[in-house]
Amino acid sequence: MSGRAQVSFGRRDVLAAAERIHGHVRRTPVAQVAGSVLGVRGSAEPVWLKLEMLQHSGSFKARGAFNRVLAARHAGQLPTAGVIAASGGNAGLAVAHVARQLGVPAEIHVPITAPAVKVARLAALGAVVVQQGTEYAQAYESALAAAEESGALFCHAYDQPEICAGQGTLGLELLEQLPDVDTVLLAVGGGGLMAGVATALRSRARVIGVEPEAIPTLNAALMVGCVVDVDVSGIAADSLGARRLGDIAFAAAVDCEVRSVLVSDQAIVEARQRLWRELRLVVEHGCAAAVAALATGAYRPGPAERVGVVLCGANTDPADLG
Amino acid sequence: MSGRAQVSFGRRDVLAAAERIHGHVRRTPVAQVAGSVLGVRGSAEPVWLKLEMLQHSGSFKARGAFNRVLAARHAGQLPTAGVIAASGGNAGLAVAHVARQLGVPAEIHVPITAPAVKVARLAALGAVVVQQGTEYAQAYESALAAAEESGALFCHAYDQPEICAGQGTLGLELLEQLPDVDTVLLAVGGGGLMAGVATALRSRARVIGVEPEAIPTLNAALMVGCVVDVDVSGIAADSLGARRLGDIAFAAAVDCEVRSVLVSDQAIVEARQRLWRELRLVVEHGCAAAVAALATGAYRPGPAERVGVVLCGANTDPADLG
Repeated sequence: MSGRAQVSFGRRDVLAAAERIHGHVRRTPVAQVAGSVLGVRGSAEPVWLKLEMLQHSGSFKARGAFNRVLAARHAGQLPTAGVIAASGGNAGLAVAHVARQLGVPAEIHVPITAPAVKVARLAALGAVVVQQGTEYAQAYESALAAAEESGALFCHAYDQPEICAGQGTLGLELLEQLPDVDTVLLAVGGGGLMAGVATALRSRARVIGVEPEAIPTLNAALMVGCVVDVDVSGIAADSLGARRLGDIAFAAAVDCEVRSVLVSDQAIVEARQRLWRELRLVVEHGCAAAVAALATGAYRPGPAERVGVVLCGANTDPADLG
Repeated sequence: MSGRAQVSFGRRDVLAAAERIHGHVRRTPVAQVAGSVLGVRGSAEPVWLKLEMLQHSGSFKARGAFNRVLAARHAGQLPTAGVIAASGGNAGLAVAHVARQLGVPAEIHVPITAPAVKVARLAALGAVVVQQGTEYAQAYESALAAAEESGALFCHAYDQPEICAGQGTLGLELLEQLPDVDTVLLAVGGGGLMAGVATALRSRARVIGVEPEAIPTLNAALMVGCVVDVDVSGIAADSLGARRLGDIAFAAAVDCEVRSVLVSDQAIVEARQRLWRELRLVVEHGCAAAVAALATGAYRPGPAERVGVVLCGANTDPADLG
């Protein structure tokens, strides 16, 4: 999506998305816990966890996917060819779920290296799974070409205004649930969630984007001043493994003064284990990054700061938590 | 506890417990989901899940344990010898947690057959673990004798007024979160949770006690007209494995017209898997029984009935959910 014209994306898009997807997505609950439970030091304030892994398809991605497809339908522009996405992960699951719920065909492109279990889950949701190439980039190009040929609606994993607006509805919901929140921590991959939530909370609360040191797409973009490719590796690559930040996300990060912090893979592993041990919550490694920022002190809340943490997904194998 | 004088237990005890344990327990959130997600047929109403597995020590048992110990402390009757309980399961974990939080010694009696991992968890919470006998009944007698000798406060797993009152605070909380709830489904073992919640909700909402067919303590008691011993077996024996209903629980069940339904072990296994598959929630088998009652139709909500389900614990190994 690089090189294209600047897209318009603002809070009104998030408000419109909330109206559009109402009734299609779950309003996920918020749990208040002592900061010490998450490893916070130096603050006696509790922390509020937004339990978004309870969302349809196991992650926040259902919000953006519903908004993208419903916006097209409401505009009378949802092709009979259905929808196409490239993703063996949360975005693909979300698009497949949305398509099934709305009764439209879905075609999901994944690399031939995608685990059989992921392919099976997409197929179980009724999606046609196309395996193409050995890397994500090839599946992405294949999906784009297929959409162009069939006329199906292409659903990007993060860099489309409707996708970002849908993810942003999580921020609006959190504001209703916790009106005086000061700070929201969330994990960043391609940046769709960050873009949406930061825009929704603009001038109301600050957003901290947390990334693994191994995949610093936001951190690198803010450092360099534009989106740049980074290497993708590490424990959270399955959910945060975008090679570069989305253009919309970069613009939103700059505009909303999103702050970037990094955490190690080891801290992510420990945060995921901590959530299970202390709260009986299972999350995926990417999601645990946001909690790791508190435990490591990569982000240190002030004495009376009210911090929300988005637990954004749980498409993970819990076997190692036993 | 059979053969003793009738104990006094009522709603005022639950209200007092709520005041006493405020700040010591977590206010657990409620998630609204479509009934179809839980397998409900014939009703378009959503269902509300009380996510009590987020409670300290991984189950509702922390409520009763805090109330028991704090009531003694407030009355100036908390012995320097500390607290004693008999349980290798949720009740033992809760008492050990409470003792550590309040800075008093805890001694937990378990059979020598208790799994090493459970003994280790109790020890990690700072409790002295006493292994005695090959069955729970022997550990129970051993704990009672030790309490008599040392003067320590004995914390029953379910059949003490302070324990039931503490568990009942979950019902008060749910009433605040969902004021127009009609029906609450919860799993029954010894009946402490049922007794407390039914008393808290008396004349406001009906309570359905769900049990495995393999351990029908409530069902048998209501059938016979008094508490009776049942065989203990099946998938949920680790958390619902009381041999007989508590006396307080039986009185409350009759008084509050609690209805009993039974579910098969197979339905329990499927309900636990369903909660993970559809909602990314991990619960223990005993807890899943309450959900199984909806999926099997053992309990069928009416067309506009507002149903709450207590997800009461998650001290389980999630390895088989991967």
